Amino acid sequence: MSEQLTFPAESAALLEPRLPPKSDATEASRSRPFVTLTFATSLDSSLSLSPGVRTRLSGPGSKAMTHYLRTRHSAILVGVSTVLADDPALNCRIAGTPSQPRPIVIDANLRWTPRHSDKVFEVCRNGIGLAPFILTGVDESSLPRGSVELLHEHGGKYIHIPASRSQSTDRLRFDWNDILAALQAEGLSSVMVEGGGQIINSLLDPAYHDLIDSVIVTIAPTWLGQGGVVVSPDRVTDTAGVPLPVARLSHVSWHPFGEDVVLCGTLRQ
Amino acid sequence: MSEQLTFPAESAALLEPRLPPKSDATEASRSRPFVTLTFATSLDSSLSLSPGVRTRLSGPGSKAMTHYLRTRHSAILVGVSTVLADDPALNCRIAGTPSQPRPIVIDANLRWTPRHSDKVFEVCRNGIGLAPFILTGVDESSLPRGSVELLHEHGGKYIHIPASRSQSTDRLRFDWNDILAALQAEGLSSVMVEGGGQIINSLLDPAYHDLIDSVIVTIAPTWLGQGGVVVSPDRVTDTAGVPLPVARLSHVSWHPFGEDVVLCGTLRQ
Repeated sequence: MSEQLTFPAESAALLEPRLPPKSDATEASRSRPFVTLTFATSLDSSLSLSPGVRTRLSGPGSKAMTHYLRTRHSAILVGVSTVLADDPALNCRIAGTPSQPRPIVIDANLRWTPRHSDKVFEVCRNGIGLAPFILTGVDESSLPRGSVELLHEHGGKYIHIPASRSQSTDRLRFDWNDILAALQAEGLSSVMVEGGGQIINSLLDPAYHDLIDSVIVTIAPTWLGQGGVVVSPDRVTDTAGVPLPVARLSHVSWHPFGEDVVLCGTLRQ
Repeated sequence: MSEQLTFPAESAALLEPRLPPKSDATEASRSRPFVTLTFATSLDSSLSLSPGVRTRLSGPGSKAMTHYLRTRHSAILVGVSTVLADDPALNCRIAGTPSQPRPIVIDANLRWTPRHSDKVFEVCRNGIGLAPFILTGVDESSLPRGSVELLHEHGGKYIHIPASRSQSTDRLRFDWNDILAALQAEGLSSVMVEGGGQIINSLLDPAYHDLIDSVIVTIAPTWLGQGGVVVSPDRVTDTAGVPLPVARLSHVSWHPFGEDVVLCGTLRQ
């Protein structure tokens, strides 16, 4: 837990043009947070071997990069499945971090029951992380009182945002514009979207490309095989039903990084 | 058809350590052909948007690289689905190519009926390509006479190799050791395996890793979305049924190439 990471200054310099502006003056004029989408996959675009299975894909340098990126964002965002699967600390372990990012958990249907022993609260009590803001579509009156209090004690909270009900799954789901509006209202000027698969695939939908300022993908030289948790957005077709590519990055750069490669680009036009 | 490609000498130098040895002396001592596996995918590991749909993924430099690689192999190998979908010329269009590679078509169940107008025969008649060797599991007595003659006129032929019948699909299929033995018997000292998806996925099976001398994958910075023709080998599990990574490259290098990246490595131990 107390492991400290370091990230080389020259690597940080390579990434700097891809990151939120450091000046507050610039950020004040934005109508929504700066959005960075970042994750690591295998060559067959898998985040992990199976849902709920943590899979070590990329090298140690990649882990340090993730934690460095966290220092450069006001918030880090994950889906509830990632929280349930990994019990992540959602903090930044770069030595000398001036401030911790705010963990944002997308839990439209309130699947997570936070517990005192969860890592995210443990690091919070140890002063090396912030308590999460949980975005949910469940009404405030239906929130479990114990969870509300646990969050409150640690400085976190539930935030209710508008949700629609998916006809196919009968589950609540969010529009990314509403998610970002909620973060903006909390004064969070930048967010790093980390996963998991459902979160990433939903953000790659063409409806949201203009929201994505920066994409940073680490690719490891391995094939995990069929059945993994795959990054691949829903198919898009033209009016005649012919499939079209869903997304293409522009302003692309590739940075070899140990055995892995780091791809940077943007989806914003 | 007469388009000529050029490939920069400095790029060729980068790839040289990944290619079959140029000296015949070295090759004479090998018991099987040198195998290079090469293809281009999207970030979500798709070769194309749909089966039979040709999808322009990578930039012009990547096309020149493919044709340069063809100059450095005795044979290029594709599955019958690729032939049926693309009507490919399967020749090399690098300016000043000293010799053309031999096209090898894997057609265990004899799905392809070659025609005089197919591009692979057209380039052959024009002196800028060789006629294919078609590897099939169908008995010589069952081969269609017209196809045998068409191949023979152009300098190609059918080659019968042992096949087993898949219990799930009731189709004939080959063992890669038998395929390579057939090429070796024809004096073909190196082969570039180009696709499509079934061919690549079958070769990535752990049973064959020791056969793969070189892997060269081009990745384009685009997501094609669900439903494409995906490179992802069949799942591998341990004895308890827990999934394991199927393949990991060693001796890895990444080479940014326009908007794409070229990944080189090996699966041989």
